[in-house]
Amino acid sequence: MRKQLLLTPGPTPIPPEVALAMAKPIIHHRTSEYRAIFEEVIKGLKYVFQTENDCFVFASSGTGAMEAAVVNLLSPKDKVITVQGGKFGERWTEICQSYGIEPSVIDVPWGEAVEPERIAEILEKDLRIKAVFTTLCETSTGVVNDVKKIAQITSKHKAVLVVDAISALASIELRTDAWGIDVVVAGSQKGLMLPPGISFLSISPKAWALVNEAKCPRYYFDLREAKRSLDKMDTPFTPAVTLVIGLREALQMIQKEGLENIWKRHALMAEATRKAVLALGLELFAPHAPSDAVTAVKVPSGLDGENLVKLLRQKYGVSIAGGQAELKGKIFRIAHMGYITPEDILLVISCLEIALNEMGYKVPLGKGVKAAEEVFGKG
Amino acid sequence: MRKQLLLTPGPTPIPPEVALAMAKPIIHHRTSEYRAIFEEVIKGLKYVFQTENDCFVFASSGTGAMEAAVVNLLSPKDKVITVQGGKFGERWTEICQSYGIEPSVIDVPWGEAVEPERIAEILEKDLRIKAVFTTLCETSTGVVNDVKKIAQITSKHKAVLVVDAISALASIELRTDAWGIDVVVAGSQKGLMLPPGISFLSISPKAWALVNEAKCPRYYFDLREAKRSLDKMDTPFTPAVTLVIGLREALQMIQKEGLENIWKRHALMAEATRKAVLALGLELFAPHAPSDAVTAVKVPSGLDGENLVKLLRQKYGVSIAGGQAELKGKIFRIAHMGYITPEDILLVISCLEIALNEMGYKVPLGKGVKAAEEVFGKG
Repeated sequence: MRKQLLLTPGPTPIPPEVALAMAKPIIHHRTSEYRAIFEEVIKGLKYVFQTENDCFVFASSGTGAMEAAVVNLLSPKDKVITVQGGKFGERWTEICQSYGIEPSVIDVPWGEAVEPERIAEILEKDLRIKAVFTTLCETSTGVVNDVKKIAQITSKHKAVLVVDAISALASIELRTDAWGIDVVVAGSQKGLMLPPGISFLSISPKAWALVNEAKCPRYYFDLREAKRSLDKMDTPFTPAVTLVIGLREALQMIQKEGLENIWKRHALMAEATRKAVLALGLELFAPHAPSDAVTAVKVPSGLDGENLVKLLRQKYGVSIAGGQAELKGKIFRIAHMGYITPEDILLVISCLEIALNEMGYKVPLGKGVKAAEEVFGKG
Repeated sequence: MRKQLLLTPGPTPIPPEVALAMAKPIIHHRTSEYRAIFEEVIKGLKYVFQTENDCFVFASSGTGAMEAAVVNLLSPKDKVITVQGGKFGERWTEICQSYGIEPSVIDVPWGEAVEPERIAEILEKDLRIKAVFTTLCETSTGVVNDVKKIAQITSKHKAVLVVDAISALASIELRTDAWGIDVVVAGSQKGLMLPPGISFLSISPKAWALVNEAKCPRYYFDLREAKRSLDKMDTPFTPAVTLVIGLREALQMIQKEGLENIWKRHALMAEATRKAVLALGLELFAPHAPSDAVTAVKVPSGLDGENLVKLLRQKYGVSIAGGQAELKGKIFRIAHMGYITPEDILLVISCLEIALNEMGYKVPLGKGVKAAEEVFGKG
């Protein structure tokens, strides 16, 4: 007998309430019954996004919503800024380039946050810049960018701010309207506690003004058509019905707990995780701007990071993530987003202690768990 | 207490085995466990598509796979043929035009199949035509097109044949390789008995040759990247994990029943449905080329078709579909695709008899059911 604990940065565990809602007999989407569900979902999304802007739901992974942001705002040869510093920041650059858009790339060392002033400098020098693309939580490095400050900068310019909040939404603080973010994209399989398969996009009036002049070709992700449908609580194409029904359930749970309480829970779990790994003598990969959604830890030298992840999954049933791209084998990532509790953190730290010792990297048993317990004790 | 019977042309009912498989704790997709599932799914899809070609799975509705076909094969200003004759044929034209591709549109009266010779004529006159887009089963009209004959024509030309088999796959005969279809796209929420949210595309070597020269911009639906991932049993972006796991279950059911038996079951249910509505004095909307996946029936004059659909759903728990676009209120559609049995057909015909009488259109009670029973009796 073995239990599975999923502490990966997407998919995250599905609450039983959500799984059961999705297992009910499916309904047709062009019915008043579905429209009522969809209306509730849109309302709940606006709460989670902290926005009065239009919110759209696509049947796609989060990358689909990223592409939707690019193709609906821009035309080939448009100038934009993309903030790199991880795999998902790079994705903004790749999507823009695929559509002939010309990014000024801000290259941030992996593990560091972008200095907002670098964005201000480019915006002041090049008045043609139409959009700034960044991540809020860079899942690949465990870094959180200061999007609040970036929004203060973009709001003084004609450029719109587009934020990948895929692994941040419903985990860490995000105030779309109060901060002045124009476009936010998100996915289902992170803080929203759903399986992957639907994605989201909110868009401000400032960004809407770009949509009609944008010349990038688009059909599946066309926001103009999506807007006409949304006004009738409909979607242009068949929605992912069961995932939307699961989302209603998840949004009810989120509203019941309260967004600020959710942010606090994530902050507490993140602090406990960081304190625990430090107590074990490990190093954080992103010590200066660690995200409260996922903690990236350096693999101690001499240890095989991929094997550590495999050992934890195969022997202890605890799934964490390894590093991606240039970080493969060099870091491991403990996600604490979505349907995750402090008790889950105690368990992963405990299993980590055993696994590290088993692999020959001696750490004092119980020392990490103690550090985490102390954080939760005061929380 | 009320039971729901879903006889709409997508979503179709989900078998309990599939619903339960999807309700199990989610797993991470970058694991050997998921790769083994994905490998089984790809193998099963090749069986259902009747092909040795590469098969791809997207997290999107069927329209996403249609867009994938267009953007991966073509460049702006390319000449193609699109076969219209319903809402989904028109979608091919719309997607092509969104990407600056120039379609020669073959306009077929709604309710009729295309005459394959019309395609041959254009191909012989205009040697620049790179692709022919058609539907196999046109869901909006209940028409089946003679794709086998169309493929005989395209195989003599440089043009590739792209078939929308979204509502045909695993319902009516489709032999991708034996017929010589280059690209087949399909969706999950029809014959495959899954919720909507994933789509599929198979592609022949003849069509692959177009992919590298195609200049339409693309990222999320880029087959080049998808192919690099597929070779490692992976996907470029997070897959819709639970739907893929449900698909494995559904494909096992399909393989157990056998594709030819499934085609026979659908043909029998379609024949029973047609005989039943004719026995009630109703008229088929597509009498010359009726699809065995969905039967479109003319709403008798004086009757409100939308109200008939509503009455059946709200009072009897039987969901059928109304007409779309120009057929709104003029036809109703009984789908018999996927997880549907002859007994379901008996029930929908029975409820239809009651509802028609209730709305003032007098039909002899039991006469339609008798006609259906006779078909099943000999089947």
